[in-house]
Amino acid sequence: MRRYVHPDPADIRLPEVLFALSDATRLGIAVQLSDGGERTAGELGGDIAKSTMTHHLKILREAGVLYVRSEGTRCYNSLRLGDLEGRFPGLLDQVLGFAVKCGYTSAGARR
Amino acid sequence: MRRYVHPDPADIRLPEVLFALSDATRLGIAVQLSDGGERTAGELGGDIAKSTMTHHLKILREAGVLYVRSEGTRCYNSLRLGDLEGRFPGLLDQVLGFAVKCGYTSAGARR
Repeated sequence: MRRYVHPDPADIRLPEVLFALSDATRLGIAVQLSDGGERTAGELGGDIAKSTMTHHLKILREAGVLYVRSEGTRCYNSLRLGDLEGRFPGLLDQVLGFAVKCGYTSAGARR
Repeated sequence: MRRYVHPDPADIRLPEVLFALSDATRLGIAVQLSDGGERTAGELGGDIAKSTMTHHLKILREAGVLYVRSEGTRCYNSLRLGDLEGRFPGLLDQVLGFAVKCGYTSAGARR
């Protein structure tokens, strides 16, 4: 089973979080996960190339925005809603609210 | 007199704004300008190399975060507070509030 490294909540840094959210595809991924659910890369990515999704999910994970849980051969992605809320209260909600308004509602949304 | 290109308010895009703010130096610049004042690159940069400041100020300008006004041989930078508030109400205030808490209070702040 693959192991993924996640930063501790105290090590989640503002510039990295903003960078992780500074891309249309990654905003779409975060919006899709904002219901608190878990999804595989395939479920999130739609028509997006697997390697592209891997790249975006890694940036989100390393910034502390996303948690990856391995189960057998599958990986399930979810947002670290509690950790982000503890670190930067209200920030993710606000950013994702604007993301929805701007049409970044899925990884492959056309804009 | 040098002319700078600035995006129209309607063309200010969320991913670009988040990217512009996803760097410790640029967060520090934005915090310094959050009083609504104008400052030259030299006033903002402290010990930071001029070319580095030029790079960061360009990213902030092209994202629509910063306005550059030329006067003679000098350039004065300010935040586009009204345009950003119109486009993404409350976002800049919230991000810069966290930036201050995290110690990103000037372009060259040590963290």
